[in-house]
Amino acid sequence: MTPANTGAAADGATPYPGLFVTFEGIDGSGKSTQCRLLAESLQAQGIEVVLTREPGGSDGAEEIRRLVLEGDPDRWSAETELLLFTAARRDHMERRILPALAAGKVVVCDRFADSTRMYQGLSRGDLRASVDQLHRLMIGHEPDLTILIDMDPAKGLARAKGRQGSEERFEDFGLDLQQRMRAGFLELAAEFSDRFRVIDGDRQMDSVARDVLEVVSTALPASDGGLGA
Amino acid sequence: MTPANTGAAADGATPYPGLFVTFEGIDGSGKSTQCRLLAESLQAQGIEVVLTREPGGSDGAEEIRRLVLEGDPDRWSAETELLLFTAARRDHMERRILPALAAGKVVVCDRFADSTRMYQGLSRGDLRASVDQLHRLMIGHEPDLTILIDMDPAKGLARAKGRQGSEERFEDFGLDLQQRMRAGFLELAAEFSDRFRVIDGDRQMDSVARDVLEVVSTALPASDGGLGA
Repeated sequence: MTPANTGAAADGATPYPGLFVTFEGIDGSGKSTQCRLLAESLQAQGIEVVLTREPGGSDGAEEIRRLVLEGDPDRWSAETELLLFTAARRDHMERRILPALAAGKVVVCDRFADSTRMYQGLSRGDLRASVDQLHRLMIGHEPDLTILIDMDPAKGLARAKGRQGSEERFEDFGLDLQQRMRAGFLELAAEFSDRFRVIDGDRQMDSVARDVLEVVSTALPASDGGLGA
Repeated sequence: MTPANTGAAADGATPYPGLFVTFEGIDGSGKSTQCRLLAESLQAQGIEVVLTREPGGSDGAEEIRRLVLEGDPDRWSAETELLLFTAARRDHMERRILPALAAGKVVVCDRFADSTRMYQGLSRGDLRASVDQLHRLMIGHEPDLTILIDMDPAKGLARAKGRQGSEERFEDFGLDLQQRMRAGFLELAAEFSDRFRVIDGDRQMDSVARDVLEVVSTALPASDGGLGA
């Protein structure tokens, strides 16, 4: 992958000096841990990193997140939920992600639009076309690099269920759905092969982290001062 | 909700037995009073009416309304606010407006998408194209009839300012903006002349109400049991 940013994806232009890296994967794949380990490794190299997550990630987006995730799971239709998540993402992009990229930082984001493509498309009726149209219209940007931590669904589910204090109702699903989600993420990786890298998450945490760092390092602009201190 | 009903405005078909009437106008035009008077007149004829308003109008939409209108006015960008209002409108349509129309009722709504076209287009940067694209994609429906209560901006502003307890920051504008808004509404009335009716609001309340009732009465389905008890 070239260090080409966003527009990147579309035309190879680089509209900002930073690097936008997202992590995707089924529940229990270890992606949140890998986000943190990547951020730590980059920071140890003197690179400025913003570690964030969706849904949420900015003050306004966190408020919208609470509005969506708290209360009766059926209080919002799939379409209304999609609009609310898109509003949250817009706020997150404007207030946190784009300013960091403009300042030359690496943004590491736990879940982004690909999760919306997956969850809204699979679990709440096929809204994939609407997701894509809304994204083009109101978000625009795609990540420079998306790391898919691939994981056997049964193992991922066992991990997710064993985790304490999970607040996400997305995780309140069974094995069948986890399997469809894994397949869905792999399909996205094929569809957006220019920016997706699939990494086997069913290994020791440190081995996975090494592979992640290697992939991200090759995407960093050459060490000519473009990134870092 | 299928987007099938949309077509309504476009091709003149009425896919539901009810009638969807919206009121628009600058602040202080008296449209909220006219909404109430119309509802009372129709109910006196035995017609079932749902009187509602935007932003808000359903439980979920009212929550989103609070999220948008409370707090620092600059907390949301124009684009994020547009997404939030569209989410609220989607909820309002699904949970309140469409079920009432399907049950053959008359829905009288104080402000609807035309207010968004006006306010977002005029006062917060020209987002009119995005407003229209979002509306087509996620809302679809247009009213069967839109009553524009036209009013001299200076008189409207004096009325709005004299009103107690107004919570809408939309009203916290000056005369210049009121004038641009009046012009904007008249432009919308010309653009959507098939469903807009302009009524002079600078008269006695009862005279305005008589004209409103006359316009709405001609739009009611013939009294063959299609509407009312």
